[in-house]
Amino acid sequence: MAIEAARLSPSLAAAAAFLGRRSPPTAPLLRRLCLLLPRRSLLASASTSSSRASSGGNGRVVALSSSELRKRRGSTSSTPTPGEDDKLRSLRRLFARPDIAIDAYIVPSQDAHQSEFIAECFMRRAYLTGFTGSAGTAVVTKNNAAFWTDGRYFLQAEKELSHDWTLLRSGNHGVPTTIEWLNDVLPSGSRVGIDPFLFSSDAAEELKAAISDKNHELILIRDFNLVDEIWGGSRPAPPKEPTRVHAIKYAGVDVASKLSFVRSQLDENGCDTVVISMLDEVAWLLNMRGSDVPHSPVFYSYLTVEMSTATLFVDSNKVSEEVLEHLKKAGVKLKSYEAILSDVERLAEKGAKLWLDSSSVNAAIVSVFRSGCDRYMRKRGKTGRQIGKEASSDDPTTKKRGVQNMELNGLYKASPVTLAKSVKNEAEIRGMKNSHLRDAAALAEFWCWIEEEVRNNVALTEVQVAENLLGFRRKQDGFIETSFDTISGYGANGAIIHYNPTPDSCSSVGSDNLFLLDSGAQYVDGTTDITRTVHFGEPSPRHKECFTRVLQGHIALDQAVFPERTPGFVLDVLARSSLWKIGLDYRHGTGHGVGAALNVHEGPQSISYRYGNLTALQKGMIVSNEPGYYEDDSFGIRIENLLLVKEVNLANSFGGISYLGFEKLTFVPIQRKLIDLPLLSPSEINWVNEYHEQVWEKVSPFLSGNPLNWLLVNTRPL
Amino acid sequence: MAIEAARLSPSLAAAAAFLGRRSPPTAPLLRRLCLLLPRRSLLASASTSSSRASSGGNGRVVALSSSELRKRRGSTSSTPTPGEDDKLRSLRRLFARPDIAIDAYIVPSQDAHQSEFIAECFMRRAYLTGFTGSAGTAVVTKNNAAFWTDGRYFLQAEKELSHDWTLLRSGNHGVPTTIEWLNDVLPSGSRVGIDPFLFSSDAAEELKAAISDKNHELILIRDFNLVDEIWGGSRPAPPKEPTRVHAIKYAGVDVASKLSFVRSQLDENGCDTVVISMLDEVAWLLNMRGSDVPHSPVFYSYLTVEMSTATLFVDSNKVSEEVLEHLKKAGVKLKSYEAILSDVERLAEKGAKLWLDSSSVNAAIVSVFRSGCDRYMRKRGKTGRQIGKEASSDDPTTKKRGVQNMELNGLYKASPVTLAKSVKNEAEIRGMKNSHLRDAAALAEFWCWIEEEVRNNVALTEVQVAENLLGFRRKQDGFIETSFDTISGYGANGAIIHYNPTPDSCSSVGSDNLFLLDSGAQYVDGTTDITRTVHFGEPSPRHKECFTRVLQGHIALDQAVFPERTPGFVLDVLARSSLWKIGLDYRHGTGHGVGAALNVHEGPQSISYRYGNLTALQKGMIVSNEPGYYEDDSFGIRIENLLLVKEVNLANSFGGISYLGFEKLTFVPIQRKLIDLPLLSPSEINWVNEYHEQVWEKVSPFLSGNPLNWLLVNTRPL
Repeated sequence: MAIEAARLSPSLAAAAAFLGRRSPPTAPLLRRLCLLLPRRSLLASASTSSSRASSGGNGRVVALSSSELRKRRGSTSSTPTPGEDDKLRSLRRLFARPDIAIDAYIVPSQDAHQSEFIAECFMRRAYLTGFTGSAGTAVVTKNNAAFWTDGRYFLQAEKELSHDWTLLRSGNHGVPTTIEWLNDVLPSGSRVGIDPFLFSSDAAEELKAAISDKNHELILIRDFNLVDEIWGGSRPAPPKEPTRVHAIKYAGVDVASKLSFVRSQLDENGCDTVVISMLDEVAWLLNMRGSDVPHSPVFYSYLTVEMSTATLFVDSNKVSEEVLEHLKKAGVKLKSYEAILSDVERLAEKGAKLWLDSSSVNAAIVSVFRSGCDRYMRKRGKTGRQIGKEASSDDPTTKKRGVQNMELNGLYKASPVTLAKSVKNEAEIRGMKNSHLRDAAALAEFWCWIEEEVRNNVALTEVQVAENLLGFRRKQDGFIETSFDTISGYGANGAIIHYNPTPDSCSSVGSDNLFLLDSGAQYVDGTTDITRTVHFGEPSPRHKECFTRVLQGHIALDQAVFPERTPGFVLDVLARSSLWKIGLDYRHGTGHGVGAALNVHEGPQSISYRYGNLTALQKGMIVSNEPGYYEDDSFGIRIENLLLVKEVNLANSFGGISYLGFEKLTFVPIQRKLIDLPLLSPSEINWVNEYHEQVWEKVSPFLSGNPLNWLLVNTRPL
Repeated sequence: MAIEAARLSPSLAAAAAFLGRRSPPTAPLLRRLCLLLPRRSLLASASTSSSRASSGGNGRVVALSSSELRKRRGSTSSTPTPGEDDKLRSLRRLFARPDIAIDAYIVPSQDAHQSEFIAECFMRRAYLTGFTGSAGTAVVTKNNAAFWTDGRYFLQAEKELSHDWTLLRSGNHGVPTTIEWLNDVLPSGSRVGIDPFLFSSDAAEELKAAISDKNHELILIRDFNLVDEIWGGSRPAPPKEPTRVHAIKYAGVDVASKLSFVRSQLDENGCDTVVISMLDEVAWLLNMRGSDVPHSPVFYSYLTVEMSTATLFVDSNKVSEEVLEHLKKAGVKLKSYEAILSDVERLAEKGAKLWLDSSSVNAAIVSVFRSGCDRYMRKRGKTGRQIGKEASSDDPTTKKRGVQNMELNGLYKASPVTLAKSVKNEAEIRGMKNSHLRDAAALAEFWCWIEEEVRNNVALTEVQVAENLLGFRRKQDGFIETSFDTISGYGANGAIIHYNPTPDSCSSVGSDNLFLLDSGAQYVDGTTDITRTVHFGEPSPRHKECFTRVLQGHIALDQAVFPERTPGFVLDVLARSSLWKIGLDYRHGTGHGVGAALNVHEGPQSISYRYGNLTALQKGMIVSNEPGYYEDDSFGIRIENLLLVKEVNLANSFGGISYLGFEKLTFVPIQRKLIDLPLLSPSEINWVNEYHEQVWEKVSPFLSGNPLNWLLVNTRPL
């Protein structure tokens, strides 16, 4: 599944809008922003369905079809209703309340954890504006209501926003950023309110600095969200899905060992406690999974790890006896989800040194931490900054320990879990490999089926195709749910990189044009993400030329060998140069990290034309390889496999270092008739033939009957 | 000619040493540092020789052979002499003088213009230390004398430094940087002296900040250089070579037009005056050339361009009547070289807004400018910072005009000449193409000659080979001098990337190993830089494998097509990936900019594995394409052509932008017997054959007799 829709990606556009600047944010912010891009509608329902599939583990897991999700979405009005104005009016009435007293309120799309997929109760921006797309920022002042979204959503926003809203088309020439706009429309010295849970600390800090140019003050309204206030009783309840233990045979490393690692990092960095706020980091660290949001097996929670204890902040209703036992064994205590603030405050007040990843930990947590620190310092008779200065410059040991940004008692640097999680252990790799083979079997059955349907002139819509694909996957052992909304795009729809077909407006899949299918699944042992582009009839020479160029890029990246310490962006050009040679390109990154039975998008690594992410690719990381080409109003092409970074044994090893390469995880045929054979070099032809040979060897044992025959035909050498 | 000898390049190492840090400096600093790396000995004599070759223009130009240069070098002692201690003693005596009063003095390798090649009178570091290598920094305290150099020079430094010096091997584990060392050995609150002419303003600022950690003060000793004081009467006189007009047929654009462009930039940036300090920028802007330093046709000078006037600060003895007339026509006044300081001071005191490229303009100029500004501000009754704040934040027009770093009345950003100079006009491109063909003819004659010599078992040393090569070049029209010291490395010497053979210690060139020859010339109409690697006997399979891998990288980069706005570093991987596939690599950049009848190394563009240089490659720029492979103690391989960036016409142009590619400037055969044919793809074989066909077509008209026959044989298809 592709990332980075445009040169200015949605999240990046949002960040740039907040930060009042057009240039890419600096590395740490960029790291979070360009890796985890919400693409599909965030209005997918929280998983409260009664349709459940038993997981391979012991917990109960949820399987919701795209159409089920879509039906639930219907309950949130997606077209302007007469009630819309009331929302703005109610919101503005709150501005004047003495305990609020603001001139503007910013409503972003995020939840409190910077999640890609969020629960319905957190979809405040969608509730307020009526806009159901995934990306956008609303700003309401006393006299204005403005909404920013990017090029993917201009038409949808025009349709869905009421007349009370002004649509600002991010990225279009002359369109101000959120900051520029705020600094322009508000009288100097205004008070701009935000819900500090919905902004990372970094984003809030930068917002604060940017609006201070016009003497505006940033007001953190922590006690309630203004949209929730007007949403009132009709606001959906927060998700209460049970959590489950992620079995050790899939996790590979037990919780105690993972906590030990985190504690060694605490020690090395001179800290007492780390606050983990990314939901997938909590799930990975505790070998737990949940179903609070669609597509990601995570649960709303925070985690603090201290040298001798660890505390999970979660709704206790989600924790079964079995999970409780599992946590107890690892010495993890439970507290309520909301208790995170008071606990951080308590730690700060007793002078604990906290590690906070300010690119993901929200501004609410960081601000209670800072005020707690101030109180601690005052108690000790010094101002905070003095203490901070002491700690950071006069203590050489602190310096040598790699402290990057020590201020007061806080260390602001990337969470110790981020990198550890991205480097998969043997059990995780085994799970990823196994789940990919089952996924490949489902896809072989699916492709065999759909070819037959199209041959028989059965009219299938893009949505029906996606639902049938889900059916094939559902039959596989350990299947849980889709890992993202299936992108099923026929013809011109395939050119919409983040296309999300809807039952009432989608196309039928025919045999006159290309069909792009990007989909993935969550299995109990792994996460998949695969794109294939096919033609059910006779592809045109243009289709074949473009497909072959994309394939050459895919092959070049797949075959890359590179020295350790190489950041992913260095390899991006390999996937593009075959397209560049004929003046083509694609406006998204080439590869993203993928979790092991976790988020389909994860950091810190990526392979992108953006140069901000300096994370080196490491042995054990998983990345997607998904070059594409999109011809507006015509067709789209993408070929995506997941790859495991592995060490390669070579005759030489210049510099005495390791050289790395890729091992394929995805084993689904690439449509042979789309290949313009004379364009391929002999070594590229070899690559295709060897790949198809592997596909046959690995996947045929899972198949029988027609699908087996389909596989045989589709893996014949070129 | 290769750049960036090691992961930590010499200049970069020096900068890192100054800045007390190991990580690469930020982009603007990096821009200067990693592009213009002194490689060969800086002890090459100033061009005062009587051996002259008439230039194609009207001025007189100098041709010095490597051996002549080397002889002159001999006059500076290159082995420890009994007098060495005296220098340190004299220097330390100066520390105590009341007008000096310092505890340490830093002696870098630079001149006042950040030049790659410098005149002998500025080789203070070499005079003081006795070390004749190109890179190094000396620091003398009351009790210590320390010298930093990088891996290329450890052995040479051990040999040349007296026992009074401590050698610090930069880049080795645990070796402190200059800053770390100073902060360690000096008692807190010491005074560290520098000659502010020898540090860019940026470098001095960062040094100042770094040593302030230990409360040391940076003392700018502007009125005299302490090494010059002890050098006394035996210090060579500053060069007094005549300058000449660079004819309009080669320059393409007249001085008035270039000055107009600079003035439009001044206007756009809200400035009154720009100070140009890079010698090649002055030469380019004024269509003048000189012979003050070896290898670069430049002359010591500064230039200020105001809206209505321009002033060249140069020793008037260097300016003939003809040159004076040329300058007058363009409205350029003359002042003495030394007058730059008083003029900048005068401008500052009258409130002029100055544009200073603080990455190249030295700290002496910037500091007089700042004190002049302060006086101006005091006169106006405001502090400078207040005025600066006014100008930068309250004046929206200033902001919109792209002002990047406006402080007081100074704008600190890259010189407007840097980019303009790098994008060649038609006349410059024509001159580059023509001079490359004559250079290719000289090389064909040379290779034909040397093959015959080796066949006849004539023993030739590496130095003799270089001298004979010079002889062939000298016969070409418009030849002036070598564009750098010829790297003539047989066998293991070829593995020393910056090898500089000396008559008494160099090897003979035989037929048992590879021979690497990296050389270039200054012609009146262009500058060349070419590397070929050959074997005069039977290459081993290893030689052929490595050579072919390097060739594949060279071909991949040569054939690259890329969208406009692509920085060079994006393409670097194309030149390496064939080597990486077998676990090989090379520790230098792949391409550097080249001036048109100017410096062989110029910015701002580069093609490098370093990611700091974000300059996009643009149509009209020239870059080298020089991947290599070096097997320590065994052999070295490098294949280098110069390339012109050009727009390519393609069937598509995705994004509505231009796509760029390369056109070769260098036309010299690549040795066919070193190619392991089965490793090449059909398209790579085509590339070689087409290149050789072009070589034959373009160069054969310049040849006759044996060299013509040699060319025929060596351009036959594979």
